[in-house]
Amino acid sequence: MTTKAELLASSLRASISSGAIGPGERLSSIRRLAAVHSISPPTVLSALRRLEHEGVVEARSRSGFYVRSANRTQIKLVRPHEAPRDVGVTSAVRKLFDGLSEGVTPLGAALPDPEWLPIDELRSVVASVQKRLGPGGQGYSMPPGRFDARRQVALLSAERGTSFGPDDVIITHGATEALFLALQATCRPGDTVLVEAPTYFGHLCLLERLGMKALEAPTDPRTGLDPDAVERLLETQRVAAILCTPTVQNPLGATMTPEAKRKLIRIATHADVPVIEDDVYGLLHDDMGQPPLKAYDANGLVLYCGSVSKCLAPGWRIGWVAPGRYRSNVMDQRFGAQLSGAPVIEAALATFLADPAFSRHLKRFRRRAITARSEFTAAIERSFPAGTEISRPTGGFLLWLRLPVGSSAMEIARSANSLGATISPGPLFSASGRLKRYMRLNAGHDFTERYRKALEAIGSVATSAIA
Amino acid sequence: MTTKAELLASSLRASISSGAIGPGERLSSIRRLAAVHSISPPTVLSALRRLEHEGVVEARSRSGFYVRSANRTQIKLVRPHEAPRDVGVTSAVRKLFDGLSEGVTPLGAALPDPEWLPIDELRSVVASVQKRLGPGGQGYSMPPGRFDARRQVALLSAERGTSFGPDDVIITHGATEALFLALQATCRPGDTVLVEAPTYFGHLCLLERLGMKALEAPTDPRTGLDPDAVERLLETQRVAAILCTPTVQNPLGATMTPEAKRKLIRIATHADVPVIEDDVYGLLHDDMGQPPLKAYDANGLVLYCGSVSKCLAPGWRIGWVAPGRYRSNVMDQRFGAQLSGAPVIEAALATFLADPAFSRHLKRFRRRAITARSEFTAAIERSFPAGTEISRPTGGFLLWLRLPVGSSAMEIARSANSLGATISPGPLFSASGRLKRYMRLNAGHDFTERYRKALEAIGSVATSAIA
Repeated sequence: MTTKAELLASSLRASISSGAIGPGERLSSIRRLAAVHSISPPTVLSALRRLEHEGVVEARSRSGFYVRSANRTQIKLVRPHEAPRDVGVTSAVRKLFDGLSEGVTPLGAALPDPEWLPIDELRSVVASVQKRLGPGGQGYSMPPGRFDARRQVALLSAERGTSFGPDDVIITHGATEALFLALQATCRPGDTVLVEAPTYFGHLCLLERLGMKALEAPTDPRTGLDPDAVERLLETQRVAAILCTPTVQNPLGATMTPEAKRKLIRIATHADVPVIEDDVYGLLHDDMGQPPLKAYDANGLVLYCGSVSKCLAPGWRIGWVAPGRYRSNVMDQRFGAQLSGAPVIEAALATFLADPAFSRHLKRFRRRAITARSEFTAAIERSFPAGTEISRPTGGFLLWLRLPVGSSAMEIARSANSLGATISPGPLFSASGRLKRYMRLNAGHDFTERYRKALEAIGSVATSAIA
Repeated sequence: MTTKAELLASSLRASISSGAIGPGERLSSIRRLAAVHSISPPTVLSALRRLEHEGVVEARSRSGFYVRSANRTQIKLVRPHEAPRDVGVTSAVRKLFDGLSEGVTPLGAALPDPEWLPIDELRSVVASVQKRLGPGGQGYSMPPGRFDARRQVALLSAERGTSFGPDDVIITHGATEALFLALQATCRPGDTVLVEAPTYFGHLCLLERLGMKALEAPTDPRTGLDPDAVERLLETQRVAAILCTPTVQNPLGATMTPEAKRKLIRIATHADVPVIEDDVYGLLHDDMGQPPLKAYDANGLVLYCGSVSKCLAPGWRIGWVAPGRYRSNVMDQRFGAQLSGAPVIEAALATFLADPAFSRHLKRFRRRAITARSEFTAAIERSFPAGTEISRPTGGFLLWLRLPVGSSAMEIARSANSLGATISPGPLFSASGRLKRYMRLNAGHDFTERYRKALEAIGSVATSAIA
């Protein structure tokens, strides 16, 4: 943030805390603030976003920024059990997804609304690539995958500070395969993997499937994995790898500061423990250009995993891994299990990433996500039981909630299903099955009547359950 | 084969063995034989194919059927070591594929020539499906995958005698993922899996990756896995699963008789050992409608795996598994590792399989494969060292060769690479690294000048190596 933006942010903060602008009141428009303070509209926006992060104001779609009501309690850090545990969440995840029909209101899975994706452009890229590749597009694409795709992945990451090249990249079947390969390349069954608490249930499913144990580390709702805690854990436990999402964590939306990322790398390097970085939300941080952990890695210790599933084309099932010094191991794993990739999709990825339309799309997408998070948050505050705590993500479209004592997110999930909506209950995000009062909501949708009603219905179920 | 075709086959066989039609001579045209014997052209073709299988005649492109010269020796059964072994072929496979450039003559990988695929139709199906699905096509397709795809897979298999329905099918990322899931659902690291000898190196790579041991069972070059040998092995060894390709085996091209398939099921059922059936070549058997092993399975013991990679769209990376009684285990594995499939590709598969153009394509493809195999075989006989034995596949486009004493297929592979061509050397197909004199060649190409020259060059390398 520039100094000008900081000055404006302080000035607004002062007006709000003094009560000059009261809770629920609308701030002046961006244009007006820009004129009054003689700064550019983007600088104003930057200041407003900072205040939004702080929970001081909230954006409402097509209407501007409002002072938040003060009743929201910021969600707090969870202290995990600090011992390795066997994981057993897959069957609960399966139950959650099994038998879901088409018409449900999807607040469970971490997928953006298809309306947010550039469907026509994606379609026409695939069509033109099919034409361009001709018969060659129907063969196999052997590991590490097409050069054009690897090159664009390297360029995209370089914009955020990494220094790996096309030859360091291996194209995969989505980020999930990338993580799977990375885990197999660095750990063996029975090994312990350090994960965040809470962490994405997909990570836990992978560990379960591979017969690895999870060691949960404290993860701050805003600043993510705590490097000091990691250091302490590495001193007492034998950890084969660290698996984490340092930028826009799932489910918290937390992002580690550059200092914390640097420190984590230092600690991992000292302990010689590989770090598997899940960066699928990295492009969705509200402030563009947050460097991934990989950007601080001089020793090839980070296996950097990414995809476009969260921001561009979930249905393409394409991802990548830049495995650093573990490249040969990962290549062996990839050869062993999945000889080929899909050449048309790989070339389509390369084409789309190279197109200026991609960064325009990302910008629009991020704006939409900020607005939607704010509107979903306001609706949750209106409909959910008093005392519900809500995360303030640094990006992306996921919200993490803590319900009052006596609540059971698993029961709320079941009730939601019978009401035609899905949510992701907290216990899925914990190797120890804790987090019973927590839930994750997908706010990656324009806040239409449908979502307002769904949140009201879920909120009333949650309220009556503890009444 | 009908009685009429059998009668014609015997009559031609007699003419040939009596010398009335000599080695290298051309048989009358199909049309002429049909007129002379008052039977339909398809019946004549059926008789000629039978003779071709027997190695009595050979087809040459656009020119008809010829009496084979007698100098070819039929390839023989290999007696494998009958003890479980750790597998270590992946690094050799990697070396073979690493650093291959675009222009090589691809006799190594088991992929049909892209020219044999209905490129325009595949392209237009993807385009129309993208349009039809709209935004929905860009989301995830959760396991078990789209109903339309599962339904068409069930129908396609039912035409060959299976009785599983759409709900028994799980769509996967190619047959390789299907096999991977099937192995993980039935075996644990350290377990022993019974495989064919020789067997597809992809199977061995999977076992290596999963830390499972291979127990090789005798596999006849024409009739495939020997059920009696399997029975003997199951009596003395602890086997967690049988992994085999009963129809058009890779690399042999062997197909088990219906009786042998039935017997294998009986034996596996008695021993309560699951059978993982790789049926990726099943649609390419020269005689349509060969039932897969799964067709004889009344107890859900067969995990049936397939794809369209060998006959339609390798680049789509789509396959399936019908896991019988192991469905829930396979679903757990699939959820654990790969939450989503690609909806557009799944819907495109459903659309193409439902189109009558698919069976027309398959018919054409099979004809082309028969001709190409015959022409490649003739060229190998001309160019390779005397005493080279060649398989007579029952379908598909792969040839399996045994070179004379003193040959090293690994060395020939290296020389071929430096000449701009690939082959697959025998040791890749054996858990024990045997089969040093064997190689697999991909005859899935129209026999153009390029392939003639490549075979001549490889043949001359092979000849000079033992000279």
